[in-house]
Amino acid sequence: MVKIGILGVGTVGTSVAKILQENADIIEARAGRSIIAKSGVVKNLSKKRDVSILLSDNPLDVVNDPEIDIVVELMGGVEEPYQLVKQALSNGKAVVTANKALLAYHRYELQELAGDTPLMYEASTAGGIPIIGALRTGLSANHVESMQGIMNGTCNYMLTKMINEGAQYDAILKEAQELGYAEADPTFDVGGFDASHKLLILASIAYGIDAKPEDILIEGIENITQTDVAFAKEFGYEIKLLGIAKKVGEGVELRVHATMIPQESMIAKVDGVMNAVTVIGDRVGETMYYGPGAGGDATASAVISDIVDIVRGNHGPMLGYKKGLESRLKLLPKEEIVTQYYLRLEVADQSGVLAEVTSTLGEFGISIEAMLQKPTADESIAKLLFTTHKCKESQMQEAITALGRLAVVQGEIAMMRIEK
Amino acid sequence: MVKIGILGVGTVGTSVAKILQENADIIEARAGRSIIAKSGVVKNLSKKRDVSILLSDNPLDVVNDPEIDIVVELMGGVEEPYQLVKQALSNGKAVVTANKALLAYHRYELQELAGDTPLMYEASTAGGIPIIGALRTGLSANHVESMQGIMNGTCNYMLTKMINEGAQYDAILKEAQELGYAEADPTFDVGGFDASHKLLILASIAYGIDAKPEDILIEGIENITQTDVAFAKEFGYEIKLLGIAKKVGEGVELRVHATMIPQESMIAKVDGVMNAVTVIGDRVGETMYYGPGAGGDATASAVISDIVDIVRGNHGPMLGYKKGLESRLKLLPKEEIVTQYYLRLEVADQSGVLAEVTSTLGEFGISIEAMLQKPTADESIAKLLFTTHKCKESQMQEAITALGRLAVVQGEIAMMRIEK
Repeated sequence: MVKIGILGVGTVGTSVAKILQENADIIEARAGRSIIAKSGVVKNLSKKRDVSILLSDNPLDVVNDPEIDIVVELMGGVEEPYQLVKQALSNGKAVVTANKALLAYHRYELQELAGDTPLMYEASTAGGIPIIGALRTGLSANHVESMQGIMNGTCNYMLTKMINEGAQYDAILKEAQELGYAEADPTFDVGGFDASHKLLILASIAYGIDAKPEDILIEGIENITQTDVAFAKEFGYEIKLLGIAKKVGEGVELRVHATMIPQESMIAKVDGVMNAVTVIGDRVGETMYYGPGAGGDATASAVISDIVDIVRGNHGPMLGYKKGLESRLKLLPKEEIVTQYYLRLEVADQSGVLAEVTSTLGEFGISIEAMLQKPTADESIAKLLFTTHKCKESQMQEAITALGRLAVVQGEIAMMRIEK
Repeated sequence: MVKIGILGVGTVGTSVAKILQENADIIEARAGRSIIAKSGVVKNLSKKRDVSILLSDNPLDVVNDPEIDIVVELMGGVEEPYQLVKQALSNGKAVVTANKALLAYHRYELQELAGDTPLMYEASTAGGIPIIGALRTGLSANHVESMQGIMNGTCNYMLTKMINEGAQYDAILKEAQELGYAEADPTFDVGGFDASHKLLILASIAYGIDAKPEDILIEGIENITQTDVAFAKEFGYEIKLLGIAKKVGEGVELRVHATMIPQESMIAKVDGVMNAVTVIGDRVGETMYYGPGAGGDATASAVISDIVDIVRGNHGPMLGYKKGLESRLKLLPKEEIVTQYYLRLEVADQSGVLAEVTSTLGEFGISIEAMLQKPTADESIAKLLFTTHKCKESQMQEAITALGRLAVVQGEIAMMRIEK
């Protein structure tokens, strides 16, 4: 019998304990041994909980318990779980974590520390979707050319509502908060930070890239308006918050941002709170993995799949390789990212403005692909919406600064990236 | 160094040998050891081939070669590869097969024979999509409630063309044959037999159901017309050839047939030669796996993922469990399947016909959900198209026989099943 201890018995932890009990028959048939949740750790012991396992408020009661075979870490945070996971590993216990922040900061130290002791994390990325398994195992014959992921259900829910129902950003954020899809302070989700942690985990498995969230380009969905949505529809795009990883020569682009993508691409069809990750391998071509990115039972499904794999003895090295994976690949500096852009400007509605804007872009080597001019309620101001051909991020940033200095450009300039 | 022998060096076998060579760096990093294709077996040695491995026309040169660690079986057929795989296993060699027919008939004997020797088959189902891994591993915490798979690219290509471009069945079959997507005798694909083999493999992992192709309901796409396509569009459906597995109480429905499914479902959005499998688990909810279902490199990607897993020591039991998986579940007899139906009849265009048809259906306990009557070029004949509420397959089959006996019903009655 295999005994599990759970650090953090909240929504996911409760689901883990319940599923281990309620689906014990099939889990034992698959794992080859029975698995039970023995004990868990919570912050507040006086709070009533719907689980029948031993509870403690001291994590060491789990981490140092000689009867516990596998420690499941669902606490959240970075430094406290890091210390506890280290302790569990040094006690020879296998570890399963759903903690994306822990991995975004410490995955390479943890791989080193774990050595041959299993340390698994399927639930850390895209909830119930077995994307870690697909990358570590199913696509192991491939150099990964690129990945695009919808890995934050809050943003996808909001964008779907903005696009399908014409909702305004503020109204839909309020609704998402009422439904429990967004936090009171929504920055971690809508700012793209949550997705960045998941992207970094996938990038480690695919490329061996060691980067932290502060090293990569992260933007959110806060500045998207119905004007942008209408433009996207007109030109055949959906708008999604994507985590993107792309191999370009010996560099790897890693970035999270609102993205215009062709309506006919599979990932554009993923609506609501659902998540999906598209992976393009040099041999297999395009594959996509779709499912729920959050929720107690869905996340617990991924946690338990790791537990079953550990019990089966099928864990392999944590990141899917021991050394030297794509070792010549380096994180590409943000400024070097090459893509197409969408820009939205408010300009004085007078002759010569268009020439001035396009010649400013031209100075930075940027040419226009498609353009739309719209009147506004204020007759003296027009909206200029356009997409550009490919250029470097640095060119675009300089061009935006220069455009902002033009007397005819009024107010803020909004920008979105395009992936075809 | 791990040495591979390949039985059948055709398109896929050639890709396996090439990828092992060309992606040797990343495959070694992931597997932890270097892997080389040593030798292969072909029928005709005089045919020129684009691989640099030893070739023989005697399978025993691979199967009995003490230097070969893993035998890759890509021959096709059933009995010859079965004998060779048995021989390889009894020689202690690990086996990787892409042979769906072999598994459709002998997967349980092979699981028994293999014991702890690895026998893997990711490439047998849905080509490059790691669906076997997802079911065996990623969803192991779940009772599988149902699965729906687009697992035959030929049919999906043809149906996509019929729906998006209004192509007629015969014309598009000819085109598919010219493009190499369909065989000269297309029955194995368009008749649903290919998909049935794959469905049986998935059903073994999910439910432990031991059935053979002749035990389950298999229909193809041969009778679909533009009339059906127009009806489907009008009522919000796509038409797909689906392999369907569904747990109903202690029975499991297994069936392959053209199916009307809601346009907004994710699997309805899978177009062209691409494959996809949706799996609904009792805990994770809906997940979907999308990618290329055929092609040398895509299939070889799956074959090599198995090889890497074997080298890592991560193979586990062949079907994902040792014994007792969902042991009370039984294959539901075809007649017991419950679903909604679409019917197309040609009837005499005269008063009272509708009453006669609906009362005949009523005699078998079948009620109508939606209906469309269309004139035909022949003024004396009308087309009656309708969908029914749920009923048993046996009720529907009897009702069709009775409808066929009505004097007002002219010619053949076409039927399609609906899944919502």
